Amino acid sequence: MKLAAVETPVGVVDLPRARRNVERAVAYCRRHRLAWRPHVKTHKSVEMARLQLDRGAQGLTVATPHEAEVMATVTDDLLLAHPPACASKVRRLCSLPRSVDLQVGLDAVEVLLPLAAAGAAAGRIFGILVEFDAGLGRTGVVAPDDAVRVAEAAARLPGARFDGLMFYPGHLRIPRPEQSEALTRLSRRIEDFVAALEGAGLPPRVVSGGSTPTLWDSHLLRGVTEVRCGTCIYNDRDIVGMGAAAPEDVAYTVLGTVISVAVPGQVVVDAGSKALSREVLGSGASGYGALFDRPAVTVKAINEEHGVLDLSQTAWRPAIGERLRIVPNHVCVSVNLHDHLWGFENGSSDGGGCAVRPVMLEARGRASPRAEQVAVGASAATSRGAATAHGPA
Amino acid sequence: MKLAAVETPVGVVDLPRARRNVERAVAYCRRHRLAWRPHVKTHKSVEMARLQLDRGAQGLTVATPHEAEVMATVTDDLLLAHPPACASKVRRLCSLPRSVDLQVGLDAVEVLLPLAAAGAAAGRIFGILVEFDAGLGRTGVVAPDDAVRVAEAAARLPGARFDGLMFYPGHLRIPRPEQSEALTRLSRRIEDFVAALEGAGLPPRVVSGGSTPTLWDSHLLRGVTEVRCGTCIYNDRDIVGMGAAAPEDVAYTVLGTVISVAVPGQVVVDAGSKALSREVLGSGASGYGALFDRPAVTVKAINEEHGVLDLSQTAWRPAIGERLRIVPNHVCVSVNLHDHLWGFENGSSDGGGCAVRPVMLEARGRASPRAEQVAVGASAATSRGAATAHGPA
Repeated sequence: MKLAAVETPVGVVDLPRARRNVERAVAYCRRHRLAWRPHVKTHKSVEMARLQLDRGAQGLTVATPHEAEVMATVTDDLLLAHPPACASKVRRLCSLPRSVDLQVGLDAVEVLLPLAAAGAAAGRIFGILVEFDAGLGRTGVVAPDDAVRVAEAAARLPGARFDGLMFYPGHLRIPRPEQSEALTRLSRRIEDFVAALEGAGLPPRVVSGGSTPTLWDSHLLRGVTEVRCGTCIYNDRDIVGMGAAAPEDVAYTVLGTVISVAVPGQVVVDAGSKALSREVLGSGASGYGALFDRPAVTVKAINEEHGVLDLSQTAWRPAIGERLRIVPNHVCVSVNLHDHLWGFENGSSDGGGCAVRPVMLEARGRASPRAEQVAVGASAATSRGAATAHGPA
Repeated sequence: MKLAAVETPVGVVDLPRARRNVERAVAYCRRHRLAWRPHVKTHKSVEMARLQLDRGAQGLTVATPHEAEVMATVTDDLLLAHPPACASKVRRLCSLPRSVDLQVGLDAVEVLLPLAAAGAAAGRIFGILVEFDAGLGRTGVVAPDDAVRVAEAAARLPGARFDGLMFYPGHLRIPRPEQSEALTRLSRRIEDFVAALEGAGLPPRVVSGGSTPTLWDSHLLRGVTEVRCGTCIYNDRDIVGMGAAAPEDVAYTVLGTVISVAVPGQVVVDAGSKALSREVLGSGASGYGALFDRPAVTVKAINEEHGVLDLSQTAWRPAIGERLRIVPNHVCVSVNLHDHLWGFENGSSDGGGCAVRPVMLEARGRASPRAEQVAVGASAATSRGAATAHGPA
């Protein structure tokens, strides 16, 4: 199978670039004695998780029970960086293989209590990272005293074990040169939380932080022991725009085909919001993506199965049927839109002559424990006359 | 299974409302002698397609080969409203059951020629609707002469059959009261294209238009024979904002659970951009969705697995674990993010006590003909040591 023959739209991975990105993250973390626990939400792939672990990641970060279930097949060291506040999620976490040591990040005793109780009943202990708000204003306790309160509960409860602190510096979606003052403020904030816990006799063993925009300055954050950055395996237009990756570090693109040249000054490709997503740039710059080899050509408008390329900055005019690679603004949500990706080894082959192989997305979707009931429901519907698809599933 | 027990985030369907929405669209179309060919991109569901056909839809509109393959199991009357400019797509269309009459909307002979040639070789004839640009500036010929040129080619080529015109008034994402002037202009534009084709001896048998924002004024567009509006089965915040549906016509919501109340003035739910999407309103109003029963509470910020609810306009404070229903801005891209939906009959039961059953999304994804090779690739990866997920698939 050649790249030129795959059906569009589809996400494609430059495998040598992905490996190089992983190796660079590992090298940085080793140099600064930081553990790397990459978030799998970006790649959703067993293959890519194995690559990260083989090269030196300590464990993996997940956001959903399904991601945890899939990644439990490749490591015993998982962090769920998302509060499981739903009974079904807690049940699934309790059903993970006994060999898996699962840490959970949360910010409230209301989440901790039922989780620890279920853990105790199931004979397992969840490591607890207390999340604090690093400035994003999303999740995480705001005051150090509140962190101490949750940590004390975790230390006390059977079924739980207090491990440390977690934060997500998602507010730092700004160009790297402008981050320095914010990083200094964040450093002080981390120290405040560490000091409060030490004062309560609960020194954090783990301080888990990191995001791809701040990855290369993680060593400037005093007290941080591990980083969770996941986007750095592929990178995207946003990450490049913030200076946290170079254009040649972009390992993921969406392959589209030109389907219309009827309206002057633009062409339309078959990669729309169901392939790229309608994510915007942190910088506020316009467009829903840009061409891989012509970054001045942006996706100026988007519908579900249409992406409109703005040709006002170029004399180049692609023809109907021409295949183009688009760098999405936010790779994680684009990957999540595809059934699978295609990977290739020879990225210099723009003509499409290079061989591709599938990159599976096993951790995509939610695959609830109700899947069986859903299947029963579907066959019941069939027996009532609703035919099933004849196409390949 | 009760609504209160399903894992969040997940899309849920108020089935009586969906039926009522379908019946209302059918009644409107009957009253105005318009055919209804709803676009399945909204629901991606065999069950919902059957509902539309049973109630009186003439056929279905699809955007992808996979949608066509799935919907070919429930009707023989399909329109692919998206130019198939990729060899793999053309092959799949040629492989549809012989009983299926497939129309294809396109705007260029460069798309028509290979399609018609493949059709002729496969012993089938594709009906052709020539798309013209109604004002959106996306796809569609701009000048009536260009429409004639494509129509003449379709009429001449074996493997093709000229059927008529197609347009998409996607630029009319404005409140209904403000649409009247634009509808008059559009009416004149339709007449220009019809007149040009009649002048060339190719009177269009079909003039296919319609979108949900303009649905209820479709009869004001002279010459239109069918409407393709699909969003009207579920509706969303955008459609309600434009006045094309009432709040009580919203049949789809995303169920989320409160996971954090740590930051004052807000709560965070587990429904983020991988459940709602980051779509914006046509009106430019802020927020990525609003609560079903408290529309003043909007999703003010969004990340992949987090939605931040703005509580600044209310004294109400939901607790951790509380389950909330969110109306997304754009239902079609939200549905596309879920493995399946849950449907319920008793929508008045907000307590979650009502029974649910699965609503499958068979037409979701792209299910390329390479699926078999992908499966082979996956098992090869497994044999190399990459374990497969142990969780339910």
